[in-house]
Amino acid sequence: MSAKNNNCKIVDCTIRDGGLVNNWDFSVEFVQHLYNSLNEAGVDYMEIGYKNSPKLLKGADSAGPWRFLDDDFLRKVIPNKGNTKLSALVDIGRVDENDILPRSESMLDLIRVACYIQDVDKALDLVKIFHERGYETTLNIMALSNVMENQLIEAFQLIRESVVDVVYIVDSYGSLKPNDYVYLVNKFKEHLPNKRLGAHTHNNMQLAFANTIIAAESGVELLDASVYGMGRAAGNCNTELLVAHLPNAKYNVRPVLDMIEKYMLPLREKEEWGYIMEYMVTGMLDEHPRSGMAQRDNVEMRDRVVEFYDRLTTPEIAHSK
Amino acid sequence: MSAKNNNCKIVDCTIRDGGLVNNWDFSVEFVQHLYNSLNEAGVDYMEIGYKNSPKLLKGADSAGPWRFLDDDFLRKVIPNKGNTKLSALVDIGRVDENDILPRSESMLDLIRVACYIQDVDKALDLVKIFHERGYETTLNIMALSNVMENQLIEAFQLIRESVVDVVYIVDSYGSLKPNDYVYLVNKFKEHLPNKRLGAHTHNNMQLAFANTIIAAESGVELLDASVYGMGRAAGNCNTELLVAHLPNAKYNVRPVLDMIEKYMLPLREKEEWGYIMEYMVTGMLDEHPRSGMAQRDNVEMRDRVVEFYDRLTTPEIAHSK
Repeated sequence: MSAKNNNCKIVDCTIRDGGLVNNWDFSVEFVQHLYNSLNEAGVDYMEIGYKNSPKLLKGADSAGPWRFLDDDFLRKVIPNKGNTKLSALVDIGRVDENDILPRSESMLDLIRVACYIQDVDKALDLVKIFHERGYETTLNIMALSNVMENQLIEAFQLIRESVVDVVYIVDSYGSLKPNDYVYLVNKFKEHLPNKRLGAHTHNNMQLAFANTIIAAESGVELLDASVYGMGRAAGNCNTELLVAHLPNAKYNVRPVLDMIEKYMLPLREKEEWGYIMEYMVTGMLDEHPRSGMAQRDNVEMRDRVVEFYDRLTTPEIAHSK
Repeated sequence: MSAKNNNCKIVDCTIRDGGLVNNWDFSVEFVQHLYNSLNEAGVDYMEIGYKNSPKLLKGADSAGPWRFLDDDFLRKVIPNKGNTKLSALVDIGRVDENDILPRSESMLDLIRVACYIQDVDKALDLVKIFHERGYETTLNIMALSNVMENQLIEAFQLIRESVVDVVYIVDSYGSLKPNDYVYLVNKFKEHLPNKRLGAHTHNNMQLAFANTIIAAESGVELLDASVYGMGRAAGNCNTELLVAHLPNAKYNVRPVLDMIEKYMLPLREKEEWGYIMEYMVTGMLDEHPRSGMAQRDNVEMRDRVVEFYDRLTTPEIAHSK
């Protein structure tokens, strides 16, 4: 725990990334209790959902309101905003820029744009729009473990010249080890000396918290986390662990424990995320967890770990995926 | 993942440390399947239980046979020993040295002696006896996070002059961070240049695997783990993660996945270990998990996380513990 950590900020993604688990079926009461808990705990940002457009996504009708955030609705949910800022994620091709109010009229402070490496240019175009409307911005490059260095170098050039505030190193598949994270952080620092960095980890191999604090030691400032780790598949770095770990005196773990006791433990009885063998296998193999999620959704197939491993590692089957 | 890891050996503690969860109530079939799985997976050692004497322990009658290993019994359990060596743990004051056959007549290869820092001298006396009977030996110094440096320096002198093969850095409370482990490994290397090192971690803050691989990068050679993390309270580093991570070509994760699917997932339905909030709190506070275990045993109290946290952090209550 070093003085370096003092610039770190926590971005809680429970609603946004956790929504991928329960189709954003969080009650207003749940989200309000979470906001108040995070605010009391000193957490810097709460990512309260996606700001994608329902017109641009199929299956939109069934999802909870946190998938398509609306400013009027948000004002009712959070009538008394505290120090915890609000964030939303957008995906390129799924956001209608006309939906984004100027920051002065919005509840949101931070808009983050997620993309794969080949779409960094499009993502930066969006970032520019949000930046001009007054928002803090981040660019979240996903699936970095599958990106070749030459692609990364090209992307760095675009990013260096852009207005984006923070660039995220996202371990989408939960396949990175601490050494890999340190390598990537140093690479990003070398090529993006004018940008701040963020880390978003997944817990497939129980390394989400470790990778996050090691990234912080290496100079990463924005640290993504979820309460009780709630997030797609293996989930994320746990907010309670980060709050307990970071040296900043403003952080207080007790309200996060309260949120876990009152809401997360009961929710975990109904919904599933965390260290689950199918996701350990996809993490180990550096793959998207979708094959694991499909197996977990099938009650007959669930927990057939060896069959799953064989399917993903037998060449003639794996190659046709 | 570096070439340094190539000297690493895995010591699976599922039966010994996992026995603390279920009072060593493992069937012979379970232990045989585990041995065969570990042997096929290339795991170097299986710690098959304690070699304490039932005469020196109360409550001995109710425990399974793995708490008081007997060589005749072991010969029946493992009729065809493979490459995986067998290990037993003893506690000082609880072992009768007359129970220990010469290694040439025993199924065991490795005897490990666990002690707190103030008993290192007594532990080394036992180590000497086992060493003279032909066993590989380790000294496992527990609760290092609560040891002052001057005590450690005194112990180092005794250890340097002893016959012990390997000295373990044990994070009994699951309170150490990666930086702490690196600090301790370097301290041990500096003072014990003639000894090999081991690491035994606990998963209270989801750092067991991370601390283990970071200790390995720093030069630790014997790595303790348990299948599916089974061990007291928050449990240990997961054998399957280590087997998947270490670069040695002899390791094969598939048999470990098979053990998990057939035996560990059903067992986890009945018995409890892992990332559980009470243990996260004791880890965070650098305390023995016994208060958490007591709360988990009480169905009325279980999951009252905030009350538990308050009890452990309110000065007038915490000081009387």
